[in-house]
Amino acid sequence: MNIEKYPSKLLENAVNEFSKLPGIGRKSALRMVLHLLRQEKEGVTAFGQSLIQLRNEIKHCKICHNISDTETCQICSNPARNNSVICVVENIRDVMLIENTQQYNGLYHVLGGIISPMDGIGPNELEINSLVERAENTEVVEIILALPTTMEGDTTNFYIFRKLKQKPVRVTTLARGVAVGDELEYTDEITLGRSLLNRVLYENSVGK
Amino acid sequence: MNIEKYPSKLLENAVNEFSKLPGIGRKSALRMVLHLLRQEKEGVTAFGQSLIQLRNEIKHCKICHNISDTETCQICSNPARNNSVICVVENIRDVMLIENTQQYNGLYHVLGGIISPMDGIGPNELEINSLVERAENTEVVEIILALPTTMEGDTTNFYIFRKLKQKPVRVTTLARGVAVGDELEYTDEITLGRSLLNRVLYENSVGK
Repeated sequence: MNIEKYPSKLLENAVNEFSKLPGIGRKSALRMVLHLLRQEKEGVTAFGQSLIQLRNEIKHCKICHNISDTETCQICSNPARNNSVICVVENIRDVMLIENTQQYNGLYHVLGGIISPMDGIGPNELEINSLVERAENTEVVEIILALPTTMEGDTTNFYIFRKLKQKPVRVTTLARGVAVGDELEYTDEITLGRSLLNRVLYENSVGK
Repeated sequence: MNIEKYPSKLLENAVNEFSKLPGIGRKSALRMVLHLLRQEKEGVTAFGQSLIQLRNEIKHCKICHNISDTETCQICSNPARNNSVICVVENIRDVMLIENTQQYNGLYHVLGGIISPMDGIGPNELEINSLVERAENTEVVEIILALPTTMEGDTTNFYIFRKLKQKPVRVTTLARGVAVGDELEYTDEITLGRSLLNRVLYENSVGK
């Protein structure tokens, strides 16, 4: 559909709003709106209200900046978590991804982005100073940088590393290597090279 | 992500609502919600309100049952439209599709679905009686059935055709044939067969 003639302004507004979402074109937006028109009034009202509440009532944890319904998030306020390790991530979704691995029991620090001069995001737009403050706490032993392996991610890693250099903490990054279940054939050269350099001891083999 | 631990109930609610939309899984829903969290409060509130308004304030045209912001829709109330032809469609989207062709100047009749016993939709759930009433109007000369070419569409066509049999109107359906720009190779046999049976005169050729 090139020329768009909507039979109703209300319909057009709703389609406009949906098509602002990432990955949603105007055709999908229309499909969603027509779907909502077939639903009960109560359900659609609840949907609308959930969005308004989401944006107006949600809080950010004052320690790690993850989103939270309370002042301090469930992770930071959980005494069973290991508060000597802080994992630095780009955003909330990464916290959820790492939590889902069930392999990590430390705390997080959500930067709220990564350094990207192209998008006008410098270190001051991110929660880097608050990370350095947290690193000054004597309890913190290790800071894990879990940022994306991109130019921006590497820049941010390096910036944080320099900021933390004088602090008595160990700074580590995620292991890079062949993905579990992947054939070597489909692994790119740089990853394969790194996985060779950073090879690990097989089980408990001790060699000769 | 198999195990889903959301850091916030508000976030979880919004993800749940988005993932009810057609074609949206939980991952895409989360992506949309995180996108909204990065937007201005005003924008997200406007989005939420547009949905609430949409479902609570939208009207259906009392003549053709297309959605409308007014009692009678823009098409039915437009004196420039040809009110002797009514095009019968399944839903609002089909009205928009046909309008976008800019090839039709008549009126519409939105059934609100097609007969589908599997989904519990019988003729009484659809706007068929109101169509028959409209057909009784002496001004109406032709009724075009523009329903999908499916079993359900054909059943609905036949049902409407029988209902209109006694009325002084011509009942037509959309031409079926090879799509414009399509190779014969990729046209299915039934369509190709129909396009042969319903062949049309080439330009102004008159033959011998």
